[in-house]
Amino acid sequence: MAGASEVLGRALTAVGVDPSTVDLESLSTRRSVRVSRFEDLVYVGFRRQFRGVPEGTLVAFRRGEHLVVWGYPSIRRMLLPRIAVPRWFPGPTVLVEEKMNGYNVRVFSLGGRIYAATRGGLVCPYTTRRLRRLHGEALQSLLDSLGPGSYIAGEVVGLENPYTRYYYEEAPGFGYFIFDIFKEGTPLPPRAKFALAPEHGLRTVNLLAELPVDGLGVERLYRIVEDLERRGREGVIVKDPEGRVEPLKYTTSSTNIGDIRLGMRYPFEEGRSFLFPRILREIFREWETGRRSYGELGEAILAPAIEAVEAVSRGERLVEEFELVLGGEDETEEVIAYFASLGVHLEIAGVSRGVDGVRVSFRKPRKSEGEIAKILETGISPLD
Amino acid sequence: MAGASEVLGRALTAVGVDPSTVDLESLSTRRSVRVSRFEDLVYVGFRRQFRGVPEGTLVAFRRGEHLVVWGYPSIRRMLLPRIAVPRWFPGPTVLVEEKMNGYNVRVFSLGGRIYAATRGGLVCPYTTRRLRRLHGEALQSLLDSLGPGSYIAGEVVGLENPYTRYYYEEAPGFGYFIFDIFKEGTPLPPRAKFALAPEHGLRTVNLLAELPVDGLGVERLYRIVEDLERRGREGVIVKDPEGRVEPLKYTTSSTNIGDIRLGMRYPFEEGRSFLFPRILREIFREWETGRRSYGELGEAILAPAIEAVEAVSRGERLVEEFELVLGGEDETEEVIAYFASLGVHLEIAGVSRGVDGVRVSFRKPRKSEGEIAKILETGISPLD
Repeated sequence: MAGASEVLGRALTAVGVDPSTVDLESLSTRRSVRVSRFEDLVYVGFRRQFRGVPEGTLVAFRRGEHLVVWGYPSIRRMLLPRIAVPRWFPGPTVLVEEKMNGYNVRVFSLGGRIYAATRGGLVCPYTTRRLRRLHGEALQSLLDSLGPGSYIAGEVVGLENPYTRYYYEEAPGFGYFIFDIFKEGTPLPPRAKFALAPEHGLRTVNLLAELPVDGLGVERLYRIVEDLERRGREGVIVKDPEGRVEPLKYTTSSTNIGDIRLGMRYPFEEGRSFLFPRILREIFREWETGRRSYGELGEAILAPAIEAVEAVSRGERLVEEFELVLGGEDETEEVIAYFASLGVHLEIAGVSRGVDGVRVSFRKPRKSEGEIAKILETGISPLD
Repeated sequence: MAGASEVLGRALTAVGVDPSTVDLESLSTRRSVRVSRFEDLVYVGFRRQFRGVPEGTLVAFRRGEHLVVWGYPSIRRMLLPRIAVPRWFPGPTVLVEEKMNGYNVRVFSLGGRIYAATRGGLVCPYTTRRLRRLHGEALQSLLDSLGPGSYIAGEVVGLENPYTRYYYEEAPGFGYFIFDIFKEGTPLPPRAKFALAPEHGLRTVNLLAELPVDGLGVERLYRIVEDLERRGREGVIVKDPEGRVEPLKYTTSSTNIGDIRLGMRYPFEEGRSFLFPRILREIFREWETGRRSYGELGEAILAPAIEAVEAVSRGERLVEEFELVLGGEDETEEVIAYFASLGVHLEIAGVSRGVDGVRVSFRKPRKSEGEIAKILETGISPLD
């Protein structure tokens, strides 16, 4: 394969940026646009927005072919659906899809092999191999039916992944639920995917309702969210059926508070970044509903963090633990090498053999452990 | 007076930076080092750290004289005094001074007039004039006794100021309490100021105790903090009596929670920035004491913010209100012009005449008002 600068140049051309206007050497050393490799695929991941190319965009090259997989856009968030839905959507109806709590994965195919890209514009070896084993043929057949330049976006949910783990009864370990199908870079109208995916034996996220955008429709939306709340699910994405305006998202209160609770186990990492945006959601929810969940919020913030301090003070580690299902030793090494290249040094905690492959449990060390240990040693805050 | 670049050059020389190595034009347009004027004083304020010159440093020029007033350093914060005090201080004892909740003001004199500088390196016209009227002669006499290059650092507390308002029974309106005296840029040993200030009729912060740095001393420190807690006071600064190591600060839990409660009235401003550092303090306090104030924290976060949303939804303004005591109309205009130059547009809410001057009540509009109004109009979050 060609040198990094040449690959970068070809990728820029593919996304409409004239490479002669870019200092390719310095771009590749800044690593905001980076050339990576997976198997015999070479790809350029846009880790940050660059000259109008969205963050997370990926240009993949293999055996003379190439494909642009555009960054998945961030969906705007409603704080007050009663106001947002009728103002935002042209109507007369909206589709309400379930928002699932996992990680966003775009699946694409090049030269008859499928690959899975994460939100940040990297091909994840674990997700790729697991999806190939579980749905390889189905994904390939769907992508083939769409033609060149197509890709799929969906949520990987369940407990067996290195990123976001929530139990889903329909996919306790590892499930892929499609929420968008892109044909030549453009999304199919929302309804089309619900027809197309099952034809190839693939699952989509749930279509919960089609509602009028006026008052009664929005009241039904609140009842849908209450139901999701009771069932411990994440929330909804509201879409125009014809895709004329961007979708909007809305999450349940239990998800917002639950995110804080989980995040504050690592107070200097997710804890810190999760706080304000989720508190903002609760402020408007409580204002709207009259509910006052002071104790619940306070506990979600303090209890897990106090527990983390207590654990570190007893000499315990602050690590994230998860189990992956892998094809064998080679894949285990591949996963470890991939995370090491991202600066995350996974440790193996155990290996067992199951019907679905090798089950390897990993520990991911957390920065908060060191921060807490230092405070316990000096008594002094790293912050004012 | 000379042009801005020339003044900048002289100021850089005064703080030990060779001006020929600096692009003065671009420095003055970046406004991180800025030339300002108050009466016939011209001064350069270092609004950010620059080439080792601390943030908040001020170089003042008047009638051929000049003075460097160094930025007041940020004092490190203890999270666990039981650990920090014996490890940090050489001993055998420490001085415990009261930390007051107001704003840090450095007073200096040039050519027989006194001036008051805020933490950010600006001469505050209000504080300067109020201090001149209340303690002008005393401050001048103390500074004269110290000789050239000297300045004083203290806390302005009370309700009559545009910055930080907490009621203190010993200074309900406006009080100045000295905590450091700098002679030729170097602080006097902590104890010396307690002797020197009263000789000139000036007040210092309270010296609460001199304690051994070992176990029993630290336990007494906790009892002092508990007492401050009960009395609704801010906290302590612990100092080495001979100034051999930097001091450390520690605030009461009621101050931390109270700051969040006050800040969350403006959720997009102080609210947002106050959250994490203060929550961190509570995590360690609760871990140490076994107290669990979940509801109190949750209420401090949510209640004032929900109230702000409710107020904006009723069409009310989100403004900070305060009353200043001014010498007359000229001073009122001077204060308004000063804040306008900082991008803050004060409104006058009322004027009344008192024995101590003109009492003018001001309203300071808050950015959070516009942010909340926009959410109430669109229903959509400005954040993910």
